[in-house]
Amino acid sequence: MAQIKNIGLFTSGGDAPGMNAAIRAVIRTALFHDVEVTGIRRGYEGMINGDFFPMGRRSVSNIMQRGGTILKTARSAQFRRPEGRQAAYEQVKKFNVDALIAIGGDGTFRGAKAFNEEFGIPVIGLPGTIDNDLVGTDFTIGYDTAINTVINAVDKIRDTAESHDRLFIVEVMGRDSGMIAWRTGMATGAEGIIIPDANIGVDKLFDRLENGRKNKTSRIVIVSECEGEEGGAFEIGRQVKEKFPHLDTRVSILGHIQRGGSPTCMDRVLACRLGAAAVEALLEGYKCDMAGIINNNVVFTPFERAIKHNSEIDPSLLRIVEMLSL
Amino acid sequence: MAQIKNIGLFTSGGDAPGMNAAIRAVIRTALFHDVEVTGIRRGYEGMINGDFFPMGRRSVSNIMQRGGTILKTARSAQFRRPEGRQAAYEQVKKFNVDALIAIGGDGTFRGAKAFNEEFGIPVIGLPGTIDNDLVGTDFTIGYDTAINTVINAVDKIRDTAESHDRLFIVEVMGRDSGMIAWRTGMATGAEGIIIPDANIGVDKLFDRLENGRKNKTSRIVIVSECEGEEGGAFEIGRQVKEKFPHLDTRVSILGHIQRGGSPTCMDRVLACRLGAAAVEALLEGYKCDMAGIINNNVVFTPFERAIKHNSEIDPSLLRIVEMLSL
Amino acid sequence: MAQIKNIGLFTSGGDAPGMNAAIRAVIRTALFHDVEVTGIRRGYEGMINGDFFPMGRRSVSNIMQRGGTILKTARSAQFRRPEGRQAAYEQVKKFNVDALIAIGGDGTFRGAKAFNEEFGIPVIGLPGTIDNDLVGTDFTIGYDTAINTVINAVDKIRDTAESHDRLFIVEVMGRDSGMIAWRTGMATGAEGIIIPDANIGVDKLFDRLENGRKNKTSRIVIVSECEGEEGGAFEIGRQVKEKFPHLDTRVSILGHIQRGGSPTCMDRVLACRLGAAAVEALLEGYKCDMAGIINNNVVFTPFERAIKHNSEIDPSLLRIVEMLSL
Amino acid sequence: MAQIKNIGLFTSGGDAPGMNAAIRAVIRTALFHDVEVTGIRRGYEGMINGDFFPMGRRSVSNIMQRGGTILKTARSAQFRRPEGRQAAYEQVKKFNVDALIAIGGDGTFRGAKAFNEEFGIPVIGLPGTIDNDLVGTDFTIGYDTAINTVINAVDKIRDTAESHDRLFIVEVMGRDSGMIAWRTGMATGAEGIIIPDANIGVDKLFDRLENGRKNKTSRIVIVSECEGEEGGAFEIGRQVKEKFPHLDTRVSILGHIQRGGSPTCMDRVLACRLGAAAVEALLEGYKCDMAGIINNNVVFTPFERAIKHNSEIDPSLLRIVEMLSL
Repeated sequence: MAQIKNIGLFTSGGDAPGMNAAIRAVIRTALFHDVEVTGIRRGYEGMINGDFFPMGRRSVSNIMQRGGTILKTARSAQFRRPEGRQAAYEQVKKFNVDALIAIGGDGTFRGAKAFNEEFGIPVIGLPGTIDNDLVGTDFTIGYDTAINTVINAVDKIRDTAESHDRLFIVEVMGRDSGMIAWRTGMATGAEGIIIPDANIGVDKLFDRLENGRKNKTSRIVIVSECEGEEGGAFEIGRQVKEKFPHLDTRVSILGHIQRGGSPTCMDRVLACRLGAAAVEALLEGYKCDMAGIINNNVVFTPFERAIKHNSEIDPSLLRIVEMLSL
Repeated sequence: MAQIKNIGLFTSGGDAPGMNAAIRAVIRTALFHDVEVTGIRRGYEGMINGDFFPMGRRSVSNIMQRGGTILKTARSAQFRRPEGRQAAYEQVKKFNVDALIAIGGDGTFRGAKAFNEEFGIPVIGLPGTIDNDLVGTDFTIGYDTAINTVINAVDKIRDTAESHDRLFIVEVMGRDSGMIAWRTGMATGAEGIIIPDANIGVDKLFDRLENGRKNKTSRIVIVSECEGEEGGAFEIGRQVKEKFPHLDTRVSILGHIQRGGSPTCMDRVLACRLGAAAVEALLEGYKCDMAGIINNNVVFTPFERAIKHNSEIDPSLLRIVEMLSL
Repeated sequence: MAQIKNIGLFTSGGDAPGMNAAIRAVIRTALFHDVEVTGIRRGYEGMINGDFFPMGRRSVSNIMQRGGTILKTARSAQFRRPEGRQAAYEQVKKFNVDALIAIGGDGTFRGAKAFNEEFGIPVIGLPGTIDNDLVGTDFTIGYDTAINTVINAVDKIRDTAESHDRLFIVEVMGRDSGMIAWRTGMATGAEGIIIPDANIGVDKLFDRLENGRKNKTSRIVIVSECEGEEGGAFEIGRQVKEKFPHLDTRVSILGHIQRGGSPTCMDRVLACRLGAAAVEALLEGYKCDMAGIINNNVVFTPFERAIKHNSEIDPSLLRIVEMLSL
Repeated sequence: MAQIKNIGLFTSGGDAPGMNAAIRAVIRTALFHDVEVTGIRRGYEGMINGDFFPMGRRSVSNIMQRGGTILKTARSAQFRRPEGRQAAYEQVKKFNVDALIAIGGDGTFRGAKAFNEEFGIPVIGLPGTIDNDLVGTDFTIGYDTAINTVINAVDKIRDTAESHDRLFIVEVMGRDSGMIAWRTGMATGAEGIIIPDANIGVDKLFDRLENGRKNKTSRIVIVSECEGEEGGAFEIGRQVKEKFPHLDTRVSILGHIQRGGSPTCMDRVLACRLGAAAVEALLEGYKCDMAGIINNNVVFTPFERAIKHNSEIDPSLLRIVEMLSL
């Protein structure tokens, strides 16, 4: 096995808080082991375009507390085609990069898997997405920050809901997984959690508005965004207004604030641990795996399993939300 | 002049952070002067419905740091009609309330003025609205909190805009006044500020996107919400996408998070000062005025002047925004 | 087995964010199962003094987001003596309380164990402490909030440290366990973590200041508070100033801000789950156990094991901190 | 008058949030007017040591939201001596700097005044200090952020104070001016505000603890730090514990967290306006003045007046604090 001397590092897909902390961890760990790091800007796009640059110890000073990614990120249509990946490989060779660390979500890892299979370059993935929807890790980097951003926003909305005796339908991110919806719903005392793609919650909500406690002075319903549609919340809001015209119902789409912000302690710690582990895994010979955390231990999962969606929500947890908000 | 022994206190219109701090200030100041306070729930609606209750010193312990209003608030269509006001007056007499303090915006003060003229009950208004659009005060209670909520949200959006090289069009509240838009635009380094009702900024934005610096990696445009329409930002976003299809343009409506949250230091101090001043003004014989702050001094402005919109933005300030974001 | 009809609920020991969320969860779950809840103020002190009161569904509306504990808390010297516990038992009988839920730390559980052994009253404990030092749970309620408060404070201190090229020695809470110190140290990029009671870190720090990279522009050292002494940080600061007089060294004791604040999403979710589980455990016949979370599952641990300190820090984690901050 | 072509820019004295926003504003405004900017690191120290470097438009991208100062800051003993200033002047000439903008407090401006008098170099000062103690401006850059940091910390401490029925004595910064103490005291509902240097508040506090309402469940006393001593709060805490041993009294020194953090909206707006005004004032021929804001207008005050302390607190404001916290 050839020794790894130069790791190419990039972020890809939607940005997530903690990506910078992971970047810092990768670089510092690599330098500790006398391995160089080459930054690649804008994910696979930059790889194809040859946007490579050497990263030193100081290049990551004081970035851990910042949202976004200093390496920038993008989605790449080109990389999905073999010619795109071939072009990327030329650049990787040209810059003497002999292994890759990719920070992103399932799309990122799908690309990484293809690249590894076609060209044999070892790639380790770090789960960087607010959606927390990957098999192979209890938490993704960015999720903890996103759910705290959501509850802070919903706490503010609750102030207005209480003052005006209103029902607010609040749409959160998380794609079809509902992972953001359930924890933030529990943590804000939501009167309902709706995950349209999984067909969870609409009937319960209507039943409750019809037969539940009448003297509730405010109500919050958390709706997970709906794949392929803009605004599941708007549609649910429309239905609620139609069926319950006496309620003062409003819709709020939290939107992109959920992707930014300084990462929480847990996201930073997760990013530090996985970033360090990714480098050391490459040195130990791992080739095509995602680093994740399961039961507080770092584990590695082959990309082919990690890219499967993890979107099941334990029904006993939804039962608790319901019981507590009665 | 009959001595004032019992002040009726209510909040009305949209809720604003700092209303609770003002409520606390009114009650503590009244009790200090041996005057009783009767809380009225849900503004003029509660006044008409007789939703009155006595408020003691402890009823306002530890409310200063909370958003919303413990007195709840509402808009009242009934109160706009003479019969509604007559019904309210019956209740005011019934509960031996001999003066009122109203916390709200211009709609609230319009009602207060009519009520005072018709029944002679002295009323003092406190400017409680995030819009900062009243003549007679440099700042309204809630404005400072709202603009900080906005910049924290936009800082988060900037993380994503930078990471993805995007243009974000962010809609903020503030009705037709643009007061929230200009300060938050300056404070977030916005590449454009648009106030649709005042016809400010769209041409400049288009000109800049066409002829300005091309290597900008992220752009934020702050749009003031558009009276009578949902989403000025969506319309502007549509136009930008059409004219500049190469830009990755997104729209974000900040929405109701702007109304809630723990008030800032300045909002609390303003609420404390105006709340105390309102009570003492009633005791000194003021009858139909809004308490405001001008050049750091408490001043009183007759309602008929205060209810006029204050929506002019000093053009020299917009010039600074533009210059700094080049 | 007699059926449980009335649960006495109290908080004890140092307050922790999330206690209110746990209180809400206990009450809502009990009412769901048609069990009454009697609140007891100020922990064992209130139990001895008969400070009991019935708690309804509405008594816990909108408390989830608030720090502190609406039941108040205290340490009780009396309860450590048999006569104190006997007096408490009289009150428990008088108010027809037939089971207890205690939210607190190891001292609380020691009392609960004695009380259960002496009088046979079933008691379930919830781990409510920022220290995260209990066997039987991966996380205690309040810990996640506290570590985020710490990193937000240290991020601010880092601004000054960077601007002035300073070394800051920052003391955090956590008693002898070092649990707060290690995670916040990793998450703030601390150049050193010192846990005086465990004899961790001082030598490494001195070695590093002597032989490490000289061009560091700012340094943060996190020191865990020292049992039985005020200010381990001051003593370490004294030594650093003496040995390295050319460094601009400052000491900052974060202090009580670490105990307060609105709980994070994870703390709220933990409190909801454990609060619900505690009630249902009592109904299922558990008698003398702490509810905890291990590997994301609720588990019950007998008090006699839970009260043992869990203060070991995985050395591989400290190695990562060190490697990343080089 | 020679035209100004190159402005030297530096920050000096204690760092304050908003300094980076001011730096950005100076640079962008200068470039807009085709004037170059030379950054000088570490204030007068860097000026003496020749630590000068050209600053372009991109050097200040996305720094507005960050605490601290990217130019770093220091206090300089050398610059207080004529030889030190002579050495600085050599460097200023060498780098073709023909005017200076200094961001700092009264010590900074005293140096600026001497330098201008001795060498004729025009200097404009920007008030950058959290203390808000300068004549010639209603607010200094950093003050609004600092008072919000304080109230957020005290809100957290209030959670614990309420939960434990405690009296907390909280020391805040602000040197002898008491400006931070009074606004934060009002905004946190403090039961007392003490400004040791001005002999304000200790007698009132003791009187109140002796004769005031006994059923207060928590008390917060805000103490302004004491010039020349470590910890006015500790001394007052000692006295309170001695005189009122039945109270559970704690002392908390907020310390350096007050200097850091992302600046508030008002601090950013102030920094933008003053930064832009400073550059344009130099171009208009101002030579030895501080830019400030009075009644929302930018005004210029000669250094000799600005360096006088502004430490008077309107007694009517302290009366309100007292009245509201009864």
